[in-house]
Amino acid sequence: MSSACSRILDELNELLGGRCTTNTSICAQHGKDESRHPEMPPDAVCFAHSAEEVATILRLCHRESVPVIPFGTGTNMEGQVCAVEGGVCIDMSEMNAITRVSQNDMDCTVQAGVTRKQLNEYLRDSGLFFPIDPGADASIGGMASTNASGTTTVAYGSMKENVLALRVALPGGELIHTASRARKSSAGYDLTRLFIGSEGTLGVITDITLRLHGRAEAISAARICFSDIANAIDTVILAMQCGIGLARIELLDKNQMAAINRYSKSDYRELPTLFLEFHGSRSGVKEQAALFSDIAVDCGGSEWTWTANESERKQMWSARHAAAFAARAARPGCVAVATDVCVPLSRLAECIAVTRKEIEVEWKWPFMLTAHIGDGNFHYVFLIDPESEQEWAVFHSLYERLIDRAIGMSGTCTGEHGIGLGKKKYLLKEFGGAGTELMRSIKSAIDPRNIMNPGKVFEDA
Amino acid sequence: MSSACSRILDELNELLGGRCTTNTSICAQHGKDESRHPEMPPDAVCFAHSAEEVATILRLCHRESVPVIPFGTGTNMEGQVCAVEGGVCIDMSEMNAITRVSQNDMDCTVQAGVTRKQLNEYLRDSGLFFPIDPGADASIGGMASTNASGTTTVAYGSMKENVLALRVALPGGELIHTASRARKSSAGYDLTRLFIGSEGTLGVITDITLRLHGRAEAISAARICFSDIANAIDTVILAMQCGIGLARIELLDKNQMAAINRYSKSDYRELPTLFLEFHGSRSGVKEQAALFSDIAVDCGGSEWTWTANESERKQMWSARHAAAFAARAARPGCVAVATDVCVPLSRLAECIAVTRKEIEVEWKWPFMLTAHIGDGNFHYVFLIDPESEQEWAVFHSLYERLIDRAIGMSGTCTGEHGIGLGKKKYLLKEFGGAGTELMRSIKSAIDPRNIMNPGKVFEDA
Repeated sequence: MSSACSRILDELNELLGGRCTTNTSICAQHGKDESRHPEMPPDAVCFAHSAEEVATILRLCHRESVPVIPFGTGTNMEGQVCAVEGGVCIDMSEMNAITRVSQNDMDCTVQAGVTRKQLNEYLRDSGLFFPIDPGADASIGGMASTNASGTTTVAYGSMKENVLALRVALPGGELIHTASRARKSSAGYDLTRLFIGSEGTLGVITDITLRLHGRAEAISAARICFSDIANAIDTVILAMQCGIGLARIELLDKNQMAAINRYSKSDYRELPTLFLEFHGSRSGVKEQAALFSDIAVDCGGSEWTWTANESERKQMWSARHAAAFAARAARPGCVAVATDVCVPLSRLAECIAVTRKEIEVEWKWPFMLTAHIGDGNFHYVFLIDPESEQEWAVFHSLYERLIDRAIGMSGTCTGEHGIGLGKKKYLLKEFGGAGTELMRSIKSAIDPRNIMNPGKVFEDA
Repeated sequence: MSSACSRILDELNELLGGRCTTNTSICAQHGKDESRHPEMPPDAVCFAHSAEEVATILRLCHRESVPVIPFGTGTNMEGQVCAVEGGVCIDMSEMNAITRVSQNDMDCTVQAGVTRKQLNEYLRDSGLFFPIDPGADASIGGMASTNASGTTTVAYGSMKENVLALRVALPGGELIHTASRARKSSAGYDLTRLFIGSEGTLGVITDITLRLHGRAEAISAARICFSDIANAIDTVILAMQCGIGLARIELLDKNQMAAINRYSKSDYRELPTLFLEFHGSRSGVKEQAALFSDIAVDCGGSEWTWTANESERKQMWSARHAAAFAARAARPGCVAVATDVCVPLSRLAECIAVTRKEIEVEWKWPFMLTAHIGDGNFHYVFLIDPESEQEWAVFHSLYERLIDRAIGMSGTCTGEHGIGLGKKKYLLKEFGGAGTELMRSIKSAIDPRNIMNPGKVFEDA
């Protein structure tokens, strides 16, 4: 432990009592996320109970220049919680109160540790819901920090479109509100979106005011196969141009479908498959689905199945939900590492095809594709023997070319997982020197002592 | 003219030839917008033809610490173009190329001087359109600078939801791209939204990549009257909770309807009136309208009229489009000054009612209300004799209390017009000391010499 950190331990203990710990296994749990990055434990973990406590912890850490790492559920994917330089991890999971819900404003305010499933459970009888679904039961604070998105983003947007305002503890210990609860505003700089996606490098998000959505009168689901991914993508592009309301549209490739068959003992056609969901009125979801199926069949789709029945719908989507487990089961003892680029839809088919060709030549082990296809965001999942240097080398080489390809196609190196530790060098490739310098100057202005999640997002200067 | 400004005039002339001028009347035209703020002309006006020229102008101005004011169409509403400290106005109107449109990506890139009507005219046969409609035929660069919104924002969002990326000339003369063309990203800080709404105080937006939308298969329009504004608001809240897709929903009060009758020689009922538009499939727009009318009639609405016929629709909305002209005609020789607060929907009825009561007691002259009711944003329009100090004093007193009320209701001092010159002191009220200081520190980091639109957004330190 650094001497600076040990200087504030007594004060943290006094502030938090048993809620500040240097226990080795608790620190270890907090130094690792769900990614390929190695465990890097903090020196201490503080379980905060209020925004004011978070602010006080920050004031102490700021005084002694001790690193601070905010921690939600640890379900992030790019090493965001790794304590590269040690320091104090602030675990937000006990700040899990749903502060208020307004039916008439269709919004709510939650503490940062509330998880998305907890919130939706709470909202169950209200007719409202919070749509963003990144897969994991992440905390709302963590989802804001990485600008999370997922299967419903094609219809409902990412965190940037669904957060109205944040309460943030700044590195010096001030608490601010980034915006009012108005549904729109032209007042001042957009602090809300500045903190969303900043991955804990600018301050600690303590409370989030969220836009909620009305539950649709009807939800229908559908599935359709294609012999070729390009045809599936053409279908999606045409459907979006026609203004068909797609609430979810997910693509799994034939490798992923085969893995699901083995995992679930199912007998899906092992072809690229689209999974769809439509939200609307009873007649609307039927009409939209019929329009979609016409387009899809014209584009070569086959085996269209559709349902508005709830249990059939869940059954229809069960394959999609099994995808991550099936991937891991495809190579026991290995880690599943997901790439995360996002490109304009017009380049998606080419980006996937060229990448697939390279993978097939160079990668001898299992891999598969899932895509949030309506956004142009896709994940090639590699099953990697964590002990094999060779496999890691091949993976990194393939991923580097994939990212260069995506950036060359006017896309981004990360659609939803963030920069964290793993993509720092690509930030420069994507934004250039002047853009990256601008971000750094904002970081320095807000966090001049670089205590907030140091070693993330930016390469060492 | 300041000596610093005169030092760069020769260089500007050399760079731009006849496109740099100090002509008094041209400078005067560029020192005034559509607001109540007095004319404050710049020392020179430069008509830029490329992002590189803009960057060069900035480099020169930065070297000599000369103020720079970006200028679009001058249709802004809070004095944003007034040259408070003189300096160089960069007129972007000749940077009006539509650089690219992608049908498959449903996006386009335009130079900052392209106006929204020009863009939609260009897109006419493409099946795509750009939805944001602030009333004036503003430039896209200006709309980004103030985070413009308007009648369609309830369905399509504001500029923040419709800009994918910007090219920006920074104060030191570097050109940056704020984002890729991917539909979502978690890479780095959100520079795009930082510049949107920054009112020219951080750099000059030179190019904008916009999300476009598919033209709906069918558009229907409707109108309905209420005896009380509160009932109209209840209707809108219920309709939004039921997930009825409202493409536009505008409220005019009885004073505004009466002014329209006098101006247009029409005989509308002089009651609070909602104007609606629905976008969707042919059956969808019918279904949505029927659901809406059920809710509205339950809430006390009367005289429901609905049409899916294009010419009838335009006729039905003509009253709404005449609102601004009718307001001005209500008191010839006077200026129409619009307030611009935005509050949560649950507080909207109370905010409007309390404000109206105060106005009726203190304001002896014409006034009327238009509201983007689905967003909680409303404009009380005051007809003011510009020579009357007394009228200005009453207006300012009423507006100050309205803004305090809106902020007290968790709302904002400006829904869409921006801070500019007129609302600087309210920024502090809305964000508090620490929030405002954070914005100032970002401003200082990006524009350390304070050359970008000085005197705007922030009160003097």
